[in-house]
Amino acid sequence: MNTVQVMLGDRSYPIRIRPGSLADLGETLVREFGAAHVVSITTPRVGEAHFETLARGLSSADLAHQRLDVPEGDRAKTLSHASRLYDSLIDLEADRDTVIVALGGGAVGDLAGFVASTYLRGVALVQVPTTLLAQVDSSVGGKTAVNHSRGKNLIGTFFQPRLVWIDPAVLSTLPASELRCGMAEIIKAGAIWDGEFFAWLEKNAKGVTALDPELLSEAIVRAVRIKAEVVGLDEREAGLRALLNFGHTLGHAIENVLGYREIHHGEAVAIGMMFAARLSERRELAPAGTAERLEGLLDCVGLPTELPDALGVTETREAYLRAMTVDKKVRGRQLGFVVLSEIGRAKVIKLTPEEVFEGADQ
Amino acid sequence: MNTVQVMLGDRSYPIRIRPGSLADLGETLVREFGAAHVVSITTPRVGEAHFETLARGLSSADLAHQRLDVPEGDRAKTLSHASRLYDSLIDLEADRDTVIVALGGGAVGDLAGFVASTYLRGVALVQVPTTLLAQVDSSVGGKTAVNHSRGKNLIGTFFQPRLVWIDPAVLSTLPASELRCGMAEIIKAGAIWDGEFFAWLEKNAKGVTALDPELLSEAIVRAVRIKAEVVGLDEREAGLRALLNFGHTLGHAIENVLGYREIHHGEAVAIGMMFAARLSERRELAPAGTAERLEGLLDCVGLPTELPDALGVTETREAYLRAMTVDKKVRGRQLGFVVLSEIGRAKVIKLTPEEVFEGADQ
Repeated sequence: MNTVQVMLGDRSYPIRIRPGSLADLGETLVREFGAAHVVSITTPRVGEAHFETLARGLSSADLAHQRLDVPEGDRAKTLSHASRLYDSLIDLEADRDTVIVALGGGAVGDLAGFVASTYLRGVALVQVPTTLLAQVDSSVGGKTAVNHSRGKNLIGTFFQPRLVWIDPAVLSTLPASELRCGMAEIIKAGAIWDGEFFAWLEKNAKGVTALDPELLSEAIVRAVRIKAEVVGLDEREAGLRALLNFGHTLGHAIENVLGYREIHHGEAVAIGMMFAARLSERRELAPAGTAERLEGLLDCVGLPTELPDALGVTETREAYLRAMTVDKKVRGRQLGFVVLSEIGRAKVIKLTPEEVFEGADQ
Repeated sequence: MNTVQVMLGDRSYPIRIRPGSLADLGETLVREFGAAHVVSITTPRVGEAHFETLARGLSSADLAHQRLDVPEGDRAKTLSHASRLYDSLIDLEADRDTVIVALGGGAVGDLAGFVASTYLRGVALVQVPTTLLAQVDSSVGGKTAVNHSRGKNLIGTFFQPRLVWIDPAVLSTLPASELRCGMAEIIKAGAIWDGEFFAWLEKNAKGVTALDPELLSEAIVRAVRIKAEVVGLDEREAGLRALLNFGHTLGHAIENVLGYREIHHGEAVAIGMMFAARLSERRELAPAGTAERLEGLLDCVGLPTELPDALGVTETREAYLRAMTVDKKVRGRQLGFVVLSEIGRAKVIKLTPEEVFEGADQ
């Protein structure tokens, strides 16, 4: 079992990564946390694929447990679904000793995390991410959220899980498009923090997306290690953690404008990263060729690299500008925009939304 | 200006107490926090009495500021009011640099605190409590909450304010019944933590409730100091902080059964404390005479000391039992019930809800 520790004082927690470990979570919950009651939050689809394996382990560890289902994807991330989960938790007599297990992708993790952080002012949360994106990114770091009609993730908390339990074997049932989304965040981790890992990905990304067990596990462990390190240095995104938003400022705007069902998060982030890498070169912040290497790696795993202009270039740009001003990363009137200094190193510069598009081809 | 510090590492904050200080908050927000934008959350009634004074100070410190009103009292503490506040904050372009000022009693503080802790995953919160109860109790310690149809405060967060700003002069407009409620928490602080303060109250409680400025300020400072000390030792109620629930387990049940409009929180807590003090004597945990001293002090400020039996003794007891099992302080099947060891010292014992009433006269 690979263990990566997130170092946050009394909120520290381990991330455990091992193929085939899903059935063993129950025993760990009893042994390490003294858990007695578990409520799993999942979706019908994820539940059908994986709940039985999880439940077997919970039962054989003598844990009282129930399952609550929420709808698939971002539709579930609303205050009203959170409210229904509160009702169900009260019905199940969940108390402060109850452990909430988030079994699913990023949306389930965000919603279950928000509920865990606000039910009885916080109960223990264990993230069991079942998508590559959630495994390498959203399950680590304690961001929880629900959406608001005016923007994604506008309501949420910082609330660290007690444990993140990653079983790469569950990814075998994942659609290729969702694998690609996870790859976007893995590539991001290398691009902003670890040039050596980026170079490793240039060699092995194909093998990772083909689910070669060893390569997949190594990619997850290395990406998770980067995320854990950054979060440990800056839990509440006061500084360094903002680097993880590389590609996300524009990425969120793209999702917002096209609609969350029209484009996957990872695709939007890939486009956002490419845009930011080109901007970095244009402003002479990064050496020539930086964007090209990023493009090569994104291409290789089938991620898009160009801005969609569904509405025509000018209208789309206007729409992105509007979307960026309600994005939660806006501080004052300027954006903190993440640029690359080189492959493996990033920094935040301040730009107005208008400056973001200055001199861009598209 | 009296300052009491809540010591919680990087979440430490000062509580400042001075009569007539309301107009000076603005200048402090600029000087100490570099604030540029303030949104005050208050109620029509509190706003009418005090907002102008606060606003004058904000304006003369050149702070951009707006005011949002929520309904009076516990009616405001719902997810749907929180949701409306999110809408308004987005309309006002509140961002992570915005400071939310909670100007009001406990309900406003709980709701505004919940919203501040969940809007954009947390923005700075300043508590400006305008009731005695909120000044000595709810504004300090970082508990935020909204109610659920099935129980009070079932949804909430632990989220420390950046500053608590107490102006005892605002209490001059407070109804006597609300002053009494604050006295219940002040008496509680002495009863569980500081026998000397309790004795001081036995001499001076009448003067405090008559709003003698010096006695009132001293009572507030001493009660706040106790609250700050306990919270500093145990932010998340894993142990010691539970002592602050003295009188509250049954108190909440009484409020729940009678309805929150039928009995004030402080009255319910007074009854709960008396019940717990008698239970402490009955179980020979506290010396004889303990309950009598508490009764004397509660009587002296006009707080009730006997369980209301509106529904007849047996039915009421049943209702209390049911109410206690959904109370958020229930861990497993037993209650953590706070008893006195003597005046000035308390501890938690484990009781089933049924044992709570064992051998009670009523």
